[in-house]
Amino acid sequence: MGTLTNSLTVRIRWGDCDPAGIIFYPRYFEIFDAATAALFERALGITKFEMFKAYEFAGWPLVHTHARFLKPTRFGDDVAVDTGIAFGRSSFDIEHRLSLNGELCVEAREKRVWTVRDADGAMKSHPIPEAVLIKFGLAPPS
Amino acid sequence: MGTLTNSLTVRIRWGDCDPAGIIFYPRYFEIFDAATAALFERALGITKFEMFKAYEFAGWPLVHTHARFLKPTRFGDDVAVDTGIAFGRSSFDIEHRLSLNGELCVEAREKRVWTVRDADGAMKSHPIPEAVLIKFGLAPPS
Amino acid sequence: MGTLTNSLTVRIRWGDCDPAGIIFYPRYFEIFDAATAALFERALGITKFEMFKAYEFAGWPLVHTHARFLKPTRFGDDVAVDTGIAFGRSSFDIEHRLSLNGELCVEAREKRVWTVRDADGAMKSHPIPEAVLIKFGLAPPS
Amino acid sequence: MGTLTNSLTVRIRWGDCDPAGIIFYPRYFEIFDAATAALFERALGITKFEMFKAYEFAGWPLVHTHARFLKPTRFGDDVAVDTGIAFGRSSFDIEHRLSLNGELCVEAREKRVWTVRDADGAMKSHPIPEAVLIKFGLAPPS
Repeated sequence: MGTLTNSLTVRIRWGDCDPAGIIFYPRYFEIFDAATAALFERALGITKFEMFKAYEFAGWPLVHTHARFLKPTRFGDDVAVDTGIAFGRSSFDIEHRLSLNGELCVEAREKRVWTVRDADGAMKSHPIPEAVLIKFGLAPPS
Repeated sequence: MGTLTNSLTVRIRWGDCDPAGIIFYPRYFEIFDAATAALFERALGITKFEMFKAYEFAGWPLVHTHARFLKPTRFGDDVAVDTGIAFGRSSFDIEHRLSLNGELCVEAREKRVWTVRDADGAMKSHPIPEAVLIKFGLAPPS
Repeated sequence: MGTLTNSLTVRIRWGDCDPAGIIFYPRYFEIFDAATAALFERALGITKFEMFKAYEFAGWPLVHTHARFLKPTRFGDDVAVDTGIAFGRSSFDIEHRLSLNGELCVEAREKRVWTVRDADGAMKSHPIPEAVLIKFGLAPPS
Repeated sequence: MGTLTNSLTVRIRWGDCDPAGIIFYPRYFEIFDAATAALFERALGITKFEMFKAYEFAGWPLVHTHARFLKPTRFGDDVAVDTGIAFGRSSFDIEHRLSLNGELCVEAREKRVWTVRDADGAMKSHPIPEAVLIKFGLAPPS
């Protein structure tokens, strides 16, 4: 079985926080985007930058996201982000659980679509390459 | 009746966009946060900064957000953000519809809680002041 | 004579500010980048997005920037940004003066290089197209 | 002698980069701000958040910054940031050298002022506490 989950530690920075002294919530989505890339990097062994060269791939834009904010975090906090993935044919569902000292602070579910560039350079959805799924332990090398 | 909706035009900037050439989705939440403040500014006639002095108020952190991304936007686009609000006792639901040339690109629903500072300086939820509701045309000045 | 200066009004947002309640200084550079694009848009009559199609152009990365911070700004402030430009052969110097109620808050000087893509897709410096300079009133249509 | 320099590794993220595929330069200043906090954290043994409680301290706003950009970086790059500090009475000079694989990409010099809150809550400059300097190995515990 391949890597279907990944864990990441992220330091919340002064500049991530707002005048209330807590994280400005759009920063969480920056973290979740980085956590998505980190999960793929762990499974594929290459960075997202290298993915553009190694695979038919033009990015994974979001279809939707749903996040619940349970407890604020603030600068100086080292938060853990646990990310899990489930693959569809041309899209994947990804779940992030962000916690501080074992206490859940945010949970988010996202659907993202695998894209490639068509002849005109436009992004269009595309089945996730089998070579990617194999790295995740999900498809037989048949 | 007071102002329960507001419309805002926002320019998507080069720096809001990612290597795919389209907006990096956390930037949408920055826009929605600004659109929330703009709605209150229109109803109350003062900026969010002034609200901290004029009302019992310490911010409106999110409980949850749910966003659907229908169509990407990119730098140079002037998008319209239509924001509507519905008040609960200590929280409010807010809905943002972001469109480009009349075509819906993103829709988001957020629940935010009205907070004040307690004696120790911690943020805690608090009923939305009647003075605020009156400005929105929602409570009798009784 | 063409447009060598431009003026822009920018609202400082809650999310631009840090726990000290004032703007987080990297946000000023986001504003200056947008002000640079706004100056070109005023002179050329097209957005930066359209510039990529209309001209030999692949962006204007910075060579250096120097900024002095005289007075902080904070959320709710509507600041004025006055931007001026002076062209070299393949680069330009740009100066931004950001003020609040007529009082200077930040001044910045940047050097940026005009780039195009070479055959391998890499960015390289390139003389500023005469068609651009003409729009700024600077080169004879000879 | 105390810690007058610090080294930090930072991953450049997809969301830090712009449609040219390279880092959007304001993100460098976010990194330099975090590198400044990391230097103090190393010397003092506490986070910036804890500094607000442990010292007379209300932040270190910038007086000026000067940055030179020598080589772009992009998503997937793990850059090294080497930060050095020199203290004045109520301010300090800080220098950041950001490099990739040993090659210098950006260098920046900043002057920041040590601030405290006055009776009205306004930020004002203040001599850097001796307790801070001692931790940096700079003042005799006399």
